[in-house]
Amino acid sequence: MAEPSLQEKYAPANICFGCGPANSKGLHIRSFVRGEEVVAQWMPEPHHEAFPGVLNGGIIGTLLDCHSNWTAAWYLMRQAVAEHPPCTVTADYAIKLLRPTPTDGQIELVARVVEARENSATVEAQLLAHGKVCATCRGTFVAVKPGHPAYHRW
Amino acid sequence: MAEPSLQEKYAPANICFGCGPANSKGLHIRSFVRGEEVVAQWMPEPHHEAFPGVLNGGIIGTLLDCHSNWTAAWYLMRQAVAEHPPCTVTADYAIKLLRPTPTDGQIELVARVVEARENSATVEAQLLAHGKVCATCRGTFVAVKPGHPAYHRW
Repeated sequence: MAEPSLQEKYAPANICFGCGPANSKGLHIRSFVRGEEVVAQWMPEPHHEAFPGVLNGGIIGTLLDCHSNWTAAWYLMRQAVAEHPPCTVTADYAIKLLRPTPTDGQIELVARVVEARENSATVEAQLLAHGKVCATCRGTFVAVKPGHPAYHRW
Repeated sequence: MAEPSLQEKYAPANICFGCGPANSKGLHIRSFVRGEEVVAQWMPEPHHEAFPGVLNGGIIGTLLDCHSNWTAAWYLMRQAVAEHPPCTVTADYAIKLLRPTPTDGQIELVARVVEARENSATVEAQLLAHGKVCATCRGTFVAVKPGHPAYHRW
């Protein structure tokens, strides 16, 4: 049987535009743990472009934000020796676009936690196309407490 | 006659996911100059959410990135006393999410250039919902030269 992604395992009903398996018009980011890294592969569609052949920078940010958020959620789950990831939200993320990202093949995402507290994590991530790093991201992700609107997001 | 947006006036055939008038599945950001600021209003659809009632952070970044890019393009056009904006691309953008952004009404974007050189501009922008600032952005946008794949983007 195919390995389920973090999103499919822990949040199959999630409707998030970036990473929700249940959003029929979303990006369906599928993140997998590989050692200390979390990785994903994703195929662009024509309407995700900025101009012909090049991926839109906002879509790049969406991929890196959601993938990094799941990296943080998985890390905090493991750190707490919990069975389910906490519901995490993005506090901030910063994108650097190093070169145009071509849309003629799979996009790869690679992320890892670089700093963590009990309820938050800082994640650094890269987006690659044809093996070249086209964009980077550094973001902070926070596990929300009861009462926050995201507390039951997955 | 209704006032055309910057995108409709200068790039009607643009297919950008965020701001292209010609992308049938895009966000169709429409930016208007108001004095030294550039503003936009935008209505979310259900598939743009992160979880029910709250806008996805990647969509927030896309709105702020594209709107800020047009703010830079307009500013550089005015600075050069040119008739058309240069084709600008994003070098970097940083998003801070201050509170959940509700999806039950219009989103407002407000941006202004805070630093500029001959061929680049730094833009600060806010995203508001129901009059409250929900997110901020600071980004750097660069006018590309002949030979860059974005040179003919609009």
